[in-house]
Amino acid sequence: MTGATAHRTTPAHDHNAPYDVARVREDFPILTRRIHEKPGRPGKPLVYLDNAASAQKPRAVIEAMTRFLEEDYANVHRGVHFLSQRATDLYEATRDRLARFLNAPSRETIVFTRNATEAFNLVAQSWGRAHLKAGDVVVLSEMEHHANIVPWQLLQAQTGIVLKVVPVLDDGSLDLDALEGLLRDPAVRLLAVSHASNVLGTVNPARQIARMAHERGVPVLFDGSQAAVHMPVDVQAIDADFYVMTGHKLYGPTGIGALYAKAELLAAMPPWQGGGDMISAVSFAGTSFREPPYRFEAGTPPIIEGVGLGAAIDYVTALGMDAILAHEQRLLAHAMDRLSGIEGLRVVGTAPGKAAIISFTIDGIHPHDIGTLLDRAGVAVRVGRHCAEPLMDRFGVGATARASFGLYNTEAEAEALADAVRACKEFFG
Amino acid sequence: MTGATAHRTTPAHDHNAPYDVARVREDFPILTRRIHEKPGRPGKPLVYLDNAASAQKPRAVIEAMTRFLEEDYANVHRGVHFLSQRATDLYEATRDRLARFLNAPSRETIVFTRNATEAFNLVAQSWGRAHLKAGDVVVLSEMEHHANIVPWQLLQAQTGIVLKVVPVLDDGSLDLDALEGLLRDPAVRLLAVSHASNVLGTVNPARQIARMAHERGVPVLFDGSQAAVHMPVDVQAIDADFYVMTGHKLYGPTGIGALYAKAELLAAMPPWQGGGDMISAVSFAGTSFREPPYRFEAGTPPIIEGVGLGAAIDYVTALGMDAILAHEQRLLAHAMDRLSGIEGLRVVGTAPGKAAIISFTIDGIHPHDIGTLLDRAGVAVRVGRHCAEPLMDRFGVGATARASFGLYNTEAEAEALADAVRACKEFFG
Repeated sequence: MTGATAHRTTPAHDHNAPYDVARVREDFPILTRRIHEKPGRPGKPLVYLDNAASAQKPRAVIEAMTRFLEEDYANVHRGVHFLSQRATDLYEATRDRLARFLNAPSRETIVFTRNATEAFNLVAQSWGRAHLKAGDVVVLSEMEHHANIVPWQLLQAQTGIVLKVVPVLDDGSLDLDALEGLLRDPAVRLLAVSHASNVLGTVNPARQIARMAHERGVPVLFDGSQAAVHMPVDVQAIDADFYVMTGHKLYGPTGIGALYAKAELLAAMPPWQGGGDMISAVSFAGTSFREPPYRFEAGTPPIIEGVGLGAAIDYVTALGMDAILAHEQRLLAHAMDRLSGIEGLRVVGTAPGKAAIISFTIDGIHPHDIGTLLDRAGVAVRVGRHCAEPLMDRFGVGATARASFGLYNTEAEAEALADAVRACKEFFG
Repeated sequence: MTGATAHRTTPAHDHNAPYDVARVREDFPILTRRIHEKPGRPGKPLVYLDNAASAQKPRAVIEAMTRFLEEDYANVHRGVHFLSQRATDLYEATRDRLARFLNAPSRETIVFTRNATEAFNLVAQSWGRAHLKAGDVVVLSEMEHHANIVPWQLLQAQTGIVLKVVPVLDDGSLDLDALEGLLRDPAVRLLAVSHASNVLGTVNPARQIARMAHERGVPVLFDGSQAAVHMPVDVQAIDADFYVMTGHKLYGPTGIGALYAKAELLAAMPPWQGGGDMISAVSFAGTSFREPPYRFEAGTPPIIEGVGLGAAIDYVTALGMDAILAHEQRLLAHAMDRLSGIEGLRVVGTAPGKAAIISFTIDGIHPHDIGTLLDRAGVAVRVGRHCAEPLMDRFGVGATARASFGLYNTEAEAEALADAVRACKEFFG
């Protein structure tokens, strides 16, 4: 299946040319949309700064899915007919692409899930339930998304494991001294932390963290939902034991995410969900299961979504994750510069080297009102607790507004954000 | 959200006009495809008879997803900005559509899952693990798909429940006398059976089965993956306690399925997967969960898939499930008539009123070879065990070839199937 010829879905950008954001924007149909259009009112141009919640899709992704449905669609894995084989090749080729994208050592270390959340639940319920017992410690951090908290709390209720929490420093960095202290406890069995925070933008030093944990014999799970979108990721260089990511934040479709795990960990994990495609033989007397990764993929997989994700990986790879990172860092610096003069504006998360995510509050204005006012100006940001309530508590904020940048955003949009925030201040001031 | 104006995706067919299959076929771009085309060889027209594995998608579904991605896409549920609210309305409108489609009493009784398989695992792990204990009996049937077997076997290994199996009669009907006998055991806690068999086509008398079970106080789960595609389904008329279906067999996208359950059952089910969107408050001291159905939908949902499924439901509703049923029954009768004269051909499953699914074997020819030969003629059928190994054992066949019809198939395609089977016989004879 690795030899499958996929549809051509890569953009025409020259990898060595300077980053041409105007040309990149042409690849995203939705970016020409106007917001709050009404008869006689032209509406506002969309300034989409909600990328940490979900990214927009390039034409290459949309067309790959459309073409697949118009020409090649069938169910996969169990068919001898032409379309079924063709669909299987196209779907499975994305496993190869994703393995290359994360520099995973083999395609068999990539498990497709329905989203990042399912990947955490898979690790907790399969690996965790098989290998953890009452009193064993799982170390999380204060900056985790609920997806990397609640599955462990459910496991805690089921098994009696103990959860410990690495604090976050005032600038949004992880407290590595505290982590070192927590790792001294010989009962620690797993460290599960964000690679990059969806609220603070903090990029944790993954390689260093993994080394600290491995010195104590503790495996590490990284939540890469945000990191894999903003920078090159190399799971072998980091020496990640588990790495979770999702498709819809990486400019691909909803309905697909992935778990990378070291082969020896996957081999020692029992099945979690049962059904078709993950078995080798079924009878009422007893059932046997396939090898990883298929053992963990029950039922009809996200076939269309796999094809779309493959096109998304091709797209960002053609642009270059390094180039995307550099572009977004320029946007971040520009936005921070423009926002810095606004009185009463507080940025939550200022760690060095952070990703292009800016969470902020404004004295005396509820984040919900900020979001509503910005939306009227066409600026889409997310407001609320960002599925990270413990972090909100840590920083003493009920909620924040969050502007998060993607590969298609521009300096003019960073300015539009700052202008809209100023107008919001004036409106409520 | 129930007032959301969805994209127009319904076909132009007049519900009262006679079923015009030629016109229906124009709605499916892939049906004009040719198979095994090569330079200088025109290939064969596609005769797609693998609908029980997955159905092809009408233009209305493809375009609904494309338009959504080009105009309205964002993450749902937690946003105040324009696109997020618009996307939420479009996504949640499908919950209303599906509730109407199944005649569920309220939208809150519909839980979205990634496929049918996940719905079974949800019932087993949430309802089953909370309410079943060692020695409790779950009754399945011999015609179940692995998706309605393996989750119960996993639960059996975890809890010590006992699985009992309703046998299948020679014509492929469920042995209702045996079911009556099994239900006499006061340890029975659940009956989980197919509404229609994916191999035999048998349509089980759901209302009668539910009445038999309810007389003993036993709730019933129906696997509607096949039935919901071929006929009108009314979960209240049947009095189903749980009803499972999937999107990709109903002419919608992969990556989405659904569980209907009575409200009082959902209310008594603890969360299964943890993450964002399913919580009401999270802290490391303790977390609380939302009401159903959201408690069971962790993380970013299948948003694009929801929009596509909504368009698929509109499409089949506009054609009329009664009209689809009548059309497919004509096809089934015609195909059975054309196949009946072929010596050595054995149809597995001949129950009265069966759905348009024909599993068969031919003396002396391996089903894999049948599939390969038919494919060369452009006829796509599925061969193998169809994720129903116990049923293969019951009928003493290692595998079968299976032709399954959909709303776009024609009498000419039924004839093409019979012609290709005859040619296959000649080739191997």
